[in-house]
Amino acid sequence: MLKIVSIVIRVTDLPAQSRFWQAALDYVERDPASDDWGVLKPRDADAPCIALDVHRSERVLPPRIHLDVYADDQAAEASRLTELGARVIPWDDRPDDADYIVMEDPEGNRFCVVDRPDWPGWDPSQSA
Amino acid sequence: MLKIVSIVIRVTDLPAQSRFWQAALDYVERDPASDDWGVLKPRDADAPCIALDVHRSERVLPPRIHLDVYADDQAAEASRLTELGARVIPWDDRPDDADYIVMEDPEGNRFCVVDRPDWPGWDPSQSA
Repeated sequence: MLKIVSIVIRVTDLPAQSRFWQAALDYVERDPASDDWGVLKPRDADAPCIALDVHRSERVLPPRIHLDVYADDQAAEASRLTELGARVIPWDDRPDDADYIVMEDPEGNRFCVVDRPDWPGWDPSQSA
Repeated sequence: MLKIVSIVIRVTDLPAQSRFWQAALDYVERDPASDDWGVLKPRDADAPCIALDVHRSERVLPPRIHLDVYADDQAAEASRLTELGARVIPWDDRPDDADYIVMEDPEGNRFCVVDRPDWPGWDPSQSA
């Protein structure tokens, strides 16, 4: 058996990135963090862990791998994330019907916030 | 509310990468794939989706973001993944007590296969 348990993000400032992602996703520390490694898990939700690894890694755009984060209220969440230190990336060619916005975390890791108010996965009793 | 639903991987050959990741993780198509986008979901497990996006993205090493995939039998899974077209990356400084090996998928995306035979998450009734 194989299972995706963690998405590992290389970081420069582990405490700052840990604070950002904990607040962004309502995550908590799974294990006590060391100087160069920490794993965050959802407080309640059924979602993957995020591991933070202090390790040099050049940022390239567009990224090879990024996260799609679903939101029940995209505008409110984008605003909240911005207050936490993320930013919305302007996108000139954005189609009118695009349901996602591109954001990046405080260290420049881009992710998409997808507007899914009606997503069945918000209800834990439903299959996504 | 925010939830990590998908990990998006930029691909060159969407059908080939879809076949690899479906077989690797026992995933199935969530929605019918288009020419440039497809989403895979776990057949049974409670794990994130993988989205495949045909989009140019330069590979850099070490990657900014990678997956940690837990295995109940690391050697058997590494062998199975190798038959599917992945490869094990030699790692000269590997500590004797390292519990993970580094592999890459057919398009060179690195991920770790972590040896966790006793992980409580294998039992869906247990919290990870």
